Amino acid sequence: MKNLYAKRMSTIPKSFIREILEVTENPEVISFAGGLPNPRFFPVEEIAVASSDVLAGADISALQYSTTEGYQPLREYIAQRYRDKKKLDISADEILITNGSQQGLDLIGKVFIGKDDRVVIEKPAYLGAIQAFAVYEPLFCPVPLLEDGIDIDQLKNVLGEHRIKLFHTVINFQNPSGISYSQYKRQELAKVFELHDAIVVEDDPYGELRFAGIAPQSMWSLLGGRVVLLGSFSKTIAPGLRLGWICAGREIMDKLVVAKQASDLHSNSLCQRIVYQYLMSNNVDRHIETIITAYKKQRDVMVAAIEEDFPAEVRFTRPEGGMFLWVTLPERLSALELFEHAVKEKVAFVPGTPFFVDGDGRNNMRLNFSNSDQDRIWEGIRRLGRIMKNLMADG
Amino acid sequence: MKNLYAKRMSTIPKSFIREILEVTENPEVISFAGGLPNPRFFPVEEIAVASSDVLAGADISALQYSTTEGYQPLREYIAQRYRDKKKLDISADEILITNGSQQGLDLIGKVFIGKDDRVVIEKPAYLGAIQAFAVYEPLFCPVPLLEDGIDIDQLKNVLGEHRIKLFHTVINFQNPSGISYSQYKRQELAKVFELHDAIVVEDDPYGELRFAGIAPQSMWSLLGGRVVLLGSFSKTIAPGLRLGWICAGREIMDKLVVAKQASDLHSNSLCQRIVYQYLMSNNVDRHIETIITAYKKQRDVMVAAIEEDFPAEVRFTRPEGGMFLWVTLPERLSALELFEHAVKEKVAFVPGTPFFVDGDGRNNMRLNFSNSDQDRIWEGIRRLGRIMKNLMADG
Repeated sequence: MKNLYAKRMSTIPKSFIREILEVTENPEVISFAGGLPNPRFFPVEEIAVASSDVLAGADISALQYSTTEGYQPLREYIAQRYRDKKKLDISADEILITNGSQQGLDLIGKVFIGKDDRVVIEKPAYLGAIQAFAVYEPLFCPVPLLEDGIDIDQLKNVLGEHRIKLFHTVINFQNPSGISYSQYKRQELAKVFELHDAIVVEDDPYGELRFAGIAPQSMWSLLGGRVVLLGSFSKTIAPGLRLGWICAGREIMDKLVVAKQASDLHSNSLCQRIVYQYLMSNNVDRHIETIITAYKKQRDVMVAAIEEDFPAEVRFTRPEGGMFLWVTLPERLSALELFEHAVKEKVAFVPGTPFFVDGDGRNNMRLNFSNSDQDRIWEGIRRLGRIMKNLMADG
Repeated sequence: MKNLYAKRMSTIPKSFIREILEVTENPEVISFAGGLPNPRFFPVEEIAVASSDVLAGADISALQYSTTEGYQPLREYIAQRYRDKKKLDISADEILITNGSQQGLDLIGKVFIGKDDRVVIEKPAYLGAIQAFAVYEPLFCPVPLLEDGIDIDQLKNVLGEHRIKLFHTVINFQNPSGISYSQYKRQELAKVFELHDAIVVEDDPYGELRFAGIAPQSMWSLLGGRVVLLGSFSKTIAPGLRLGWICAGREIMDKLVVAKQASDLHSNSLCQRIVYQYLMSNNVDRHIETIITAYKKQRDVMVAAIEEDFPAEVRFTRPEGGMFLWVTLPERLSALELFEHAVKEKVAFVPGTPFFVDGDGRNNMRLNFSNSDQDRIWEGIRRLGRIMKNLMADG
């Protein structure tokens, strides 16, 4: 059988989260590993009402084949929200509804990435982007993240050395690092890419979950037509509905639609209508406010616990939003070794290496704070701190 | 921008149906063009009840991220149905839930098709398969369909000349031809592929819609481990839910799951539960019986109308199920020319060429009978017949 598989299959990394599912599904385990939104805030009742409203109408189109681009009122809502909230000049026909942002990445790979095309990713990078793009066999060029976004000098070096096809950034509260690009860094980035004929993928699933500070400009407004912007309802409403979107100019959109049609014809008609109905009947901003308040508290607790319990040499990010925090252990500590001890103590996290394509990350770890309550965050961090101290004493 | 697109984008054919949407969306037009199930039979009320049952439960997992493979009870239901109805030895862990069968084709392309790999398709072929596979840049080898399935001699020739990676067949009531493989032809096919290390994709979205005759064996039972079997709820429940599945042995399944995860993480959690709930609370066999009774009547009417109104030289298939009927015009009649006249008379269909990768099909046409009532079928066929006779008189 082996010789029947396409070569690309050997290059797609597996998900570490999937590999450790047995560990994290044990309810006794305090898991900072997953990337799950907190289900306490899923608007279950509101979705139930929206669903029965949609299906009570005589409109059978909620169950029929539909246009590839997506449900028109939902596309118009998303465009309007960008105009109202972010002053972004986006029209409904520049929006394609996808099965979550992850499908957006797959479609971008289909449309742009040929074998051995060079793709700049962040270092560390979003694992889902590595997986989606790897299918199309690019050469990845990782460029380090600093505290305020990508290292512009190193980015310029890479762009100087190689013809780059595409740059992928999770611009707000990055997964895994929690880092956000400053306004200055975004402007610098725009200047760099004005000189290069490449696609900038602005992947923004977490942007609405801002706890503090003012949102800087979107790359869409700074750089225009070569930006492809991804959004999602997964973190603000619910991920099980699998609804996200891509914004792109008309010419790129034409290609994305062809790719989407070849992939699965169109996204779920019923759930597109349910989400639209939910948005029409509820105050989603107030709902997002509730999520933000809770996640901010959880981040605060995690930061406080780390400051109290982790060894002083451990460095970590203090994200202004999102769901993740990134830890850098002292050189002599291996995150994988820490992980093995942690599992025995019933705590889980994701060690750093899956977020790197070059073998780095051995002393990094990603901690999720969105899906644990405050008590478990205190307790989990306390256990991790104790193991770290023991390992450092041993070493 | 042009030099930024991947080469593959130039090889994916567009959908003819999309191109003529403006024509077919006009309610005055009698359209035999689409491939739509008849929405009269969508179980809207039952889906509404199922949906409120799912969301009334305290189980928030319907809205959370979920396993890539799909909702376990739904996978078990599908496996059990194969065992009960078709005596197929399929277990739940050999089933992956997809966004309709179309995504199954994309995942198969991802897992198996490398650039310039040879893929045997039927002639004419399902357009969605051509589109899905074209993304992975194979060389297509079309082999003609006869009245009882593929031309085995020509298939053997192709397999003798080239190393073939994959064979795709819509085995029951094929789209576009309406043709089904006889039991004898399936056995011959199994014998051929026993000698060749290739994947057989048994694409079966219409198999449950059988009006007459006994269902022959599935290739899954005849050929075993190298068959990948695709199924769908689109034609039996509703296509807007975007739920289909792939059956494959464990080793292939591992690869398909990696491809699915890279594509969109998993299929819609909520709709998987709604469909499962619907299946538990309703007699789906009786529901399918209702659809069959109606479609059979519509096919009968279309066949009778064609016999009455089309010129005697026109040949056509008499499908035992499904949704389509395939017409072969006399050599001197062009289906595209007929189409232009038909649109003026407010009738639409799909001319043959999109179903061929080699430019053939100019005197073929596909007629859909599932989505028109009897009166409109009579009237539409009458108009088409009149145009044909006029064109033949002119020629």
